[in-house]
Amino acid sequence: MDRSSSRGIPQEPAEPPKTAAALVIGDEILSGKVEEANVAALARMLRGLGVLLRRVVVVMDDVETIAREVRELSRTHDWLFTSGGVGPTHDDVTVEAVARAFGVPVVSSAEMEAMLRAHYRERVTEGHLRMALVPQGAALEVTNEITWPTIRLSNTWLLPGIPEVFRMKLPVVATYLAATAAPAFVSRAVYVKMDEGELKPLLDRVVGTFPDVSVGSYPKWFDAAYKTKLTFDGRDDARVLAARDAFLGLLPVGEPQRTE
Amino acid sequence: MDRSSSRGIPQEPAEPPKTAAALVIGDEILSGKVEEANVAALARMLRGLGVLLRRVVVVMDDVETIAREVRELSRTHDWLFTSGGVGPTHDDVTVEAVARAFGVPVVSSAEMEAMLRAHYRERVTEGHLRMALVPQGAALEVTNEITWPTIRLSNTWLLPGIPEVFRMKLPVVATYLAATAAPAFVSRAVYVKMDEGELKPLLDRVVGTFPDVSVGSYPKWFDAAYKTKLTFDGRDDARVLAARDAFLGLLPVGEPQRTE
Repeated sequence: MDRSSSRGIPQEPAEPPKTAAALVIGDEILSGKVEEANVAALARMLRGLGVLLRRVVVVMDDVETIAREVRELSRTHDWLFTSGGVGPTHDDVTVEAVARAFGVPVVSSAEMEAMLRAHYRERVTEGHLRMALVPQGAALEVTNEITWPTIRLSNTWLLPGIPEVFRMKLPVVATYLAATAAPAFVSRAVYVKMDEGELKPLLDRVVGTFPDVSVGSYPKWFDAAYKTKLTFDGRDDARVLAARDAFLGLLPVGEPQRTE
Repeated sequence: MDRSSSRGIPQEPAEPPKTAAALVIGDEILSGKVEEANVAALARMLRGLGVLLRRVVVVMDDVETIAREVRELSRTHDWLFTSGGVGPTHDDVTVEAVARAFGVPVVSSAEMEAMLRAHYRERVTEGHLRMALVPQGAALEVTNEITWPTIRLSNTWLLPGIPEVFRMKLPVVATYLAATAAPAFVSRAVYVKMDEGELKPLLDRVVGTFPDVSVGSYPKWFDAAYKTKLTFDGRDDARVLAARDAFLGLLPVGEPQRTE
């Protein structure tokens, strides 16, 4: 992710980064039966595109709860991604909830219905055909490689909960977002043997001097190689490097450290 | 988790289950640098105690955002668990945010300060001592085995973000909650080779007949052994078993299935 080529090159005034929220739908996550596995993959993809994932909410399979959340999150973020609840069974209520949030009816997409009939042929059931239901006005996004449509209504993407299928859809989203995204983040890291208590005064000085660089500190409890990982993130690599180097300059002489 | 001993034994009228929410604090989760690893462990523990985890929210390291969320989630659930942001550095703002949410000041706990001074001795720094800061009025929960205090303010527990330490704290929470919790859930499962489209009419009938049993359906895409896992959950094992058996009775003759 590091891009050192921009060092010293004058930057255009940056527009504010696009923001995103994720809404994970599923009783199975909240009951602990299934581990949530989609947010991290989504977060990394968004980060690579310079989109700031600001909020994640996990809710139960309840239409009104989901609708209320979609209304709020889609209004307050540039993009909203839902995960889960798009299959054909009684607990799959995301399409209905998104439609309700945007005040549109649920309709059958002729295009998706034709695809389902072509796939299942004489085995097709009413349950299969429920997978053609979309909120009215939804766009069906595809790429050359991924031709089964991904449903997008305005700024809200409806992604499936099954992790393998969720991951298959991400390139479709990435292709669409790439056109509108701000420059990607750059990230630097330092590993030290000091603990957070000892590091605090040093970090406070760096944070004060570089308000445009986000400084993170992550203690590792059971690792002999280092005790704390410090991260330096921002949109301007020169500033990120300067913050990291300012921090290195504050370390006691001989403090073991590794940088990346 | 299954408890078949309650079959046929008359149940006392159940009080409604206690509810819980989790608030995960951390830019590192939202940026995709670190995978969230605490919610599933918390969810499983709560489920074993019969507590219903109803909502999870992930937010950035921002005091006002966290405070607003703590205020809302602690008001609308029996229990709230925060994860992360309790270390000594500038991005650890959870104690301050919880205090603000409850309208109390942050104070240094004499008990925790003494423990920190005893541990670090002459190496103790201002950063270390920040770990003694608590919202005024907080209880310090311990067990015989886990003597470093876990901070609880009213119905809100402040848990650390580091997964190994988070897990060490769960027994303290479980001990406290066990006294007040409702009976645990029981869970049954059936694995079939039918897909969700074919299963829908069968499931709809079971859902209609057993409103007190939660029926879940989880397609597995890349497994030769089965295509869909059905789960049947509730507080009364007799009802859960009856719902499962009603479903089995609806399957076509010869449909391969496995139950558990």
